[in-house]
Amino acid sequence: MTRTVRDYIRTIADFPHEGIMFRDVTTLFADPRGFRMAIDQLLHPYAGIAIDKVAGLEARGFILGGAVAHQLSTGFVPVRKKGKLPGTVISEAYQLEYGEAVMELHDDAIVPGERVLIVDDLLATGGTAEAGIRLCRRLGAEVIGCAFVIDLPDLGGRARLEALGMPVHVLTAFEGD
Amino acid sequence: MTRTVRDYIRTIADFPHEGIMFRDVTTLFADPRGFRMAIDQLLHPYAGIAIDKVAGLEARGFILGGAVAHQLSTGFVPVRKKGKLPGTVISEAYQLEYGEAVMELHDDAIVPGERVLIVDDLLATGGTAEAGIRLCRRLGAEVIGCAFVIDLPDLGGRARLEALGMPVHVLTAFEGD
Repeated sequence: MTRTVRDYIRTIADFPHEGIMFRDVTTLFADPRGFRMAIDQLLHPYAGIAIDKVAGLEARGFILGGAVAHQLSTGFVPVRKKGKLPGTVISEAYQLEYGEAVMELHDDAIVPGERVLIVDDLLATGGTAEAGIRLCRRLGAEVIGCAFVIDLPDLGGRARLEALGMPVHVLTAFEGD
Repeated sequence: MTRTVRDYIRTIADFPHEGIMFRDVTTLFADPRGFRMAIDQLLHPYAGIAIDKVAGLEARGFILGGAVAHQLSTGFVPVRKKGKLPGTVISEAYQLEYGEAVMELHDDAIVPGERVLIVDDLLATGGTAEAGIRLCRRLGAEVIGCAFVIDLPDLGGRARLEALGMPVHVLTAFEGD
């Protein structure tokens, strides 16, 4: 039987700290069939839909987003952690379990009216993705969707993004995380 | 006249610190023609050559490497900064201007004998790329080449990699850096 995207994902216990079951996509990306299937399936809902730019969330979203942008022949823009982008940026802070984090986007990365697809490997609480949506919208983007390989539904990210009016596409979900 | 890959690259003075002319590829990646040209041109020397895996260097090498791996229908493996990979890793340290840095690779990321192409945005001193080559070779890879968008020839990276027997492919060079 053909392996699915889910079959290629490895689970590593207690990373980055005790009690976390880390869903590791590097085993998916390292396999030629796995990586190909992941990119193709991420794009299926958007066939025939106009997309101007793909925004990838640092850092695993860069791997997927680069491939997706190349497949679509669109531009790619990185949403990065604070201090990594060299030009003038806009910023959005979001809450972590302890403290907060800041994501940034170059202020000229998007032309108002451009249709943007946001891509990352994992939807957990949705904090990073929400920051990415807000950044793109502040530059005038129409964010047409967010696509992830993995959803952790117990952490509520999908509901959080849908509350922002955002269609969410995921390839597989792991419950109990 | 058609713009070249070089025309899309923006220069930002004094990033990340005073006196550095930072060559910013985000303006290249954000443009659909620029990004398409960069990926296509990165691959031209390898047409007809067997490649099993693409290794991308964190973080901008993930954007390029994801696209290149998808184009080739190969697997993708990330070479990451210390502490980012969840599984068992091997490590290589290299010298920075002040102090040292460590790059890591999952110890099962490559099967001995696999032919690997290493991809990154910028070749400066070649320290990160050399660490990537050493990591892949330690797992038994045949590293068939290193491909970069930008070379800074004054910093000697190409000579350093060629001394390791590594064919180097770059799309454009900026002198005086």
